[in-house]
Amino acid sequence: MSSNFIFSKHDTIELANKYGTPLYVISEDIIKENAERLLSAFKKCKVDFEINYAGKAFLNIAMCRIIDKLGLSLDVVSGGELYTAKKSGFPMGRICFHGSNKSIEEIKMAFEFKVGKIVADSEYELGLLNRIAEEMGVTPKVMVRVSPGIEAHTHEYVQTGRVDSKFGIPLKLVVKILSQKGIYKNLNICGLHCHIGSQIFDEKPFIIAADTMLKLIRDLKTEGVGITELNLGGGFGIPYLKDDSVFEIDVYLKKLVKFTGDKCKEYGIDFPKLLIEPGRYIIGTAGITLYEIGTVKEVPHTRKYVSIDGGMADNPRPALYDALHHAVIANKMDSSFDDEELVTVSGRCCETDTLISDVLLPNPAAGDILAVLNTGAYNYSMSSNYNRLPKPAVVLLNGKHDEIIVERETYEDIVSKDRIPSWYR
Amino acid sequence: MSSNFIFSKHDTIELANKYGTPLYVISEDIIKENAERLLSAFKKCKVDFEINYAGKAFLNIAMCRIIDKLGLSLDVVSGGELYTAKKSGFPMGRICFHGSNKSIEEIKMAFEFKVGKIVADSEYELGLLNRIAEEMGVTPKVMVRVSPGIEAHTHEYVQTGRVDSKFGIPLKLVVKILSQKGIYKNLNICGLHCHIGSQIFDEKPFIIAADTMLKLIRDLKTEGVGITELNLGGGFGIPYLKDDSVFEIDVYLKKLVKFTGDKCKEYGIDFPKLLIEPGRYIIGTAGITLYEIGTVKEVPHTRKYVSIDGGMADNPRPALYDALHHAVIANKMDSSFDDEELVTVSGRCCETDTLISDVLLPNPAAGDILAVLNTGAYNYSMSSNYNRLPKPAVVLLNGKHDEIIVERETYEDIVSKDRIPSWYR
Repeated sequence: MSSNFIFSKHDTIELANKYGTPLYVISEDIIKENAERLLSAFKKCKVDFEINYAGKAFLNIAMCRIIDKLGLSLDVVSGGELYTAKKSGFPMGRICFHGSNKSIEEIKMAFEFKVGKIVADSEYELGLLNRIAEEMGVTPKVMVRVSPGIEAHTHEYVQTGRVDSKFGIPLKLVVKILSQKGIYKNLNICGLHCHIGSQIFDEKPFIIAADTMLKLIRDLKTEGVGITELNLGGGFGIPYLKDDSVFEIDVYLKKLVKFTGDKCKEYGIDFPKLLIEPGRYIIGTAGITLYEIGTVKEVPHTRKYVSIDGGMADNPRPALYDALHHAVIANKMDSSFDDEELVTVSGRCCETDTLISDVLLPNPAAGDILAVLNTGAYNYSMSSNYNRLPKPAVVLLNGKHDEIIVERETYEDIVSKDRIPSWYR
Repeated sequence: MSSNFIFSKHDTIELANKYGTPLYVISEDIIKENAERLLSAFKKCKVDFEINYAGKAFLNIAMCRIIDKLGLSLDVVSGGELYTAKKSGFPMGRICFHGSNKSIEEIKMAFEFKVGKIVADSEYELGLLNRIAEEMGVTPKVMVRVSPGIEAHTHEYVQTGRVDSKFGIPLKLVVKILSQKGIYKNLNICGLHCHIGSQIFDEKPFIIAADTMLKLIRDLKTEGVGITELNLGGGFGIPYLKDDSVFEIDVYLKKLVKFTGDKCKEYGIDFPKLLIEPGRYIIGTAGITLYEIGTVKEVPHTRKYVSIDGGMADNPRPALYDALHHAVIANKMDSSFDDEELVTVSGRCCETDTLISDVLLPNPAAGDILAVLNTGAYNYSMSSNYNRLPKPAVVLLNGKHDEIIVERETYEDIVSKDRIPSWYR
């Protein structure tokens, strides 16, 4: 029996030996479990729904194929994400195109590809979409993003605090803008969208947001604007550390559907199609990163630094958001509690680059393989070439199979766009 | 007379039209001015010196050529940076290889390429370097990085505060480690290195560090270890905003050389060769970024958001370090003070992505070109493909000439490493 760390039925030491480190490892089986949990929770509620995977969390051609096979829709936020989906053969009708500042080129690309929906983020963009739609002779389906004045941050939330946002049309302006007659005649405005935050573990702020949006649908109906779809965004929390909470998606959706039903009756509106946009919820726990430990440095009476062959270039979350991760030494899973010491895991980049401030690891030493857990979301997608480090490979696990879905960059890739100006030739 | 923003004698609107946006613009003329200021300050002091440009701030093949032509040496911190230098034809004898966790592969590469110096960051690494040097039959020149227990942060500094660092050998252990006889017989240990921080505007902490290091050279001499080179690192502050301080390099070097001379006499040691490692100081003010403004959104009674076609993917410094930048509307340089309004510049990435919280801009509108100043350092080098945004091009200005030195990435580049696993084929 191997004492190595097993992730999604695979021996992580074998993966590190086969593919090298640093290595992103993604489990398709865990993606499926996470998606099925969402799907079954919605199905139990017996309402018309759509789950849009937020591609910004982790996207590449293989991921598009997985999302397609699961029957989910896909949120894209740029030409690059849209191009990736198109290249993968993803059904364009199940694409929703987001973003607070889409370029004219991207909007034309979206219309040309016939994406299912486009989310208008501002009054300016409604006008831009309408003008381009007219030029191209199309009538795109449009969702309007609303800034609902609700912010949920971890367990705190406020109802009026977050009016100050770059995203969406301020709540108070929506009816005035959308009830203008004959202005957006090339757009099929069918839905509203809002998003209230990230890593939320409590369903209450979502319910408050739903109420705000349902009232808005009522007010729009009064003005003759029919809204049939309501997207309440993502932000469902996932556990990063052992004792972290879990977002109870079943509880949330059950309450949401009941609440929506009650309020629709009260407000005299039809029950809308309900949409959600999970990104991290689907991919976060499905990924780990494998690193090789190098220098281990004891600063006497102070701290032990354990250096790895990656860091902020492949996982900028700790530096950007003070994000916390748990880690294990993959080749020392049978070590006893007595071997553990509290250490700091440092990345290799030439600045402080702390990946994990405090973690208990058993006798960390050069050559050990460190597995950092729950790195599926916003790691690969935010990775850089800082210090001219090539980006790690991404390997996908499916049952017993493991295959590369993103090749490791080479030094030659790093210089491939470099050009020598004529005065140096 | 054009009312456009002129940068290093070039009309930035013409550059934006010619190369598109977002666009990194780097002035070779300003790089030269910055380097000449350092060189002439050192030359006036009439001592043996070496200036190592810290490549992590901004590196590519063209930049290596510029650094070579200026006669500077080059710090690299990874195989990728070393590969870039080699590819450019940079003289390997003027390379100094840094890093707190070099891989065995990188060390072998450095020895094979015959780099001028390698900086050993820990006792572990000294052993590793010695072993690999023995295997390869080489005797590399080694600098030993010391953690001097001094931290300088902006205008504050402490003498004993920053013992807790992943970098270098703790001060108290250096003599004990280096005075062991016959242990590092394959290494030519000739110098000491320390680095006390970034964006420092005051020479005092550097002088304190110099004293610490000179005492260490004295103590090592007592033990029969001869040190002939002293690298005091970089960290010389540059102005980001209009009223920011400037680091007086002349004042610093004059004081440093006088102080070093006095202390060498006092400590009975020879005057060492002095080295510094400026990165930001050379490239920071030599770069700007040009963006096109898209959505401009007024949140009533709150704030105006001005969106650009780039953001945290091409400049993560505001998100990572709360860094501040100044910006101008490049096509509205003749606007009056009355036109100016306080706005927030938002990046296009799908999160808050604030590039500049508060800046006065004259009537910002879609289609305007925003020039963000002093983005030469740690912008291109830290850029990511977040939201699958292609990295911007880098254009180099030299006198009247402008040429691409890093090509803009394409959507096809974004998917070029993506692979479809066999079970989806």
